[in-house]
Amino acid sequence: MVQDALLRCAAVAAASLLIGACIALALAPPSVGPALGGDADRETLYQVSTIDALLQGVYDGSISFDELATHGDLGIGCGDRLDGELVGVDGEWYLVRTDGRASPTAGNAMTPFATATFFDPDMTVPIDEPKNLTALEGYLETKIPSKNLFYAIRFDGTFPRVVTRSVPAQEKPYPRLADVTANQTVFTFENVTGTAVGFWTPVLAKGVNVPGYHLHFITSDRNAGGHLLDMTVAEGSVQVDTTTNFTMVLPAGGDFWTVDLSENLSEDLKRAEK
Amino acid sequence: MVQDALLRCAAVAAASLLIGACIALALAPPSVGPALGGDADRETLYQVSTIDALLQGVYDGSISFDELATHGDLGIGCGDRLDGELVGVDGEWYLVRTDGRASPTAGNAMTPFATATFFDPDMTVPIDEPKNLTALEGYLETKIPSKNLFYAIRFDGTFPRVVTRSVPAQEKPYPRLADVTANQTVFTFENVTGTAVGFWTPVLAKGVNVPGYHLHFITSDRNAGGHLLDMTVAEGSVQVDTTTNFTMVLPAGGDFWTVDLSENLSEDLKRAEK
Repeated sequence: MVQDALLRCAAVAAASLLIGACIALALAPPSVGPALGGDADRETLYQVSTIDALLQGVYDGSISFDELATHGDLGIGCGDRLDGELVGVDGEWYLVRTDGRASPTAGNAMTPFATATFFDPDMTVPIDEPKNLTALEGYLETKIPSKNLFYAIRFDGTFPRVVTRSVPAQEKPYPRLADVTANQTVFTFENVTGTAVGFWTPVLAKGVNVPGYHLHFITSDRNAGGHLLDMTVAEGSVQVDTTTNFTMVLPAGGDFWTVDLSENLSEDLKRAEK
Repeated sequence: MVQDALLRCAAVAAASLLIGACIALALAPPSVGPALGGDADRETLYQVSTIDALLQGVYDGSISFDELATHGDLGIGCGDRLDGELVGVDGEWYLVRTDGRASPTAGNAMTPFATATFFDPDMTVPIDEPKNLTALEGYLETKIPSKNLFYAIRFDGTFPRVVTRSVPAQEKPYPRLADVTANQTVFTFENVTGTAVGFWTPVLAKGVNVPGYHLHFITSDRNAGGHLLDMTVAEGSVQVDTTTNFTMVLPAGGDFWTVDLSENLSEDLKRAEK
């Protein structure tokens, strides 16, 4: 009789385990379609706000670095109130401030402008003779399959010379970005080992992001870096991730809602990026 | 002793239920962040290709209507090879061809250009005096909270007059859209009951979609409609869904990869849309 009871007990326990599993699975969040989960999400370039809003001084952050990290493991952008240049590599996120030091982002700190993706390289472009950044960029452009897609870029190596910049946190009323970068702090590294990461944006996204290249740099010890102004490359290979999906999250309030985005800001952009 | 065994049995069953639930929850798909699951996905405007590519004759479809429907229950666009004007309302999708008839889309048929969202209105704008489409659009623009966001629009009612158009399927080499619409078929409806659906796009997405309004119409019996050219509104109310997230899926091959998207096509767009 005791044995019967224990047998029944085991059967009830097994059934309960099964029922519990079924209930829990039924309560699990539903799939939201192929382009928003799993692999398709990895092929999405995720962007916060627009470059034209940033150029006009929309510097208040609208999403947290913790949230940004759920949309990619590689990326660039800037800190809240323009406080530092953002570099994300291997799922680690850093801000390079005007003292030239890189420090890990606080997860609950915000960004006003950032771009991220999960980096799965589709292409490796070998560089076998010395080039400056302009020559390197021109060369890469001959290798990409279409000028109408987005590409994430990663270049690890030891570089004879790397020039970066950073900008200081701003106070309201915020000046335009080209006026801030007129007083940027510039850093020069020689024979430095590190990683350049960033994106190539097609001209179809003009006003939304920076058409062409936008790269940031971080040293291999993850202690220094910045927005890439120039570099000399001896040899190495550039990894490229072709990205056909683009997601943009616009700020749900703040200065973004009233800024005039109808102007052509190409000249401002040239001043701000170089 | 039997009672003891049964008590232990009940305890084991309860524990098993809990463990089963925990295991199943641990195995459930992870959340991918608020912007890609559930409610946030409903607040995303999903777009296939770009208007500037369509204006230049990129008419081969790149995603199926079945896939489009996983990203929204309301939308507009066109058929493969420009074969008909697409209208999606209440999760039902129709193509209006040059005979003026609306017919349900085949799920495996493709679209070269479309925009869709899950329609959850945030705002209802009452219309209490007669207006033509231009006046209606101007009035709505005074009601939206920001000109820098995307809005989905739905207007159900009986309208004194509605003017729509459709265009025929094209053969390669594809002509430009403005040359196709020069020979569009125009339909005029009087005292017609139906639904106008579509989007208001901010100027930041110029070249990507149609800045300002882009609306299509379908009759209440879902038998006729087209791209909206003009309408007269007596009274009613317009529903508006504010959308801060924008996702664009670019074609993974075909003519899109080589088309020149650097031109300003505003004049082409005016000719094609009116």
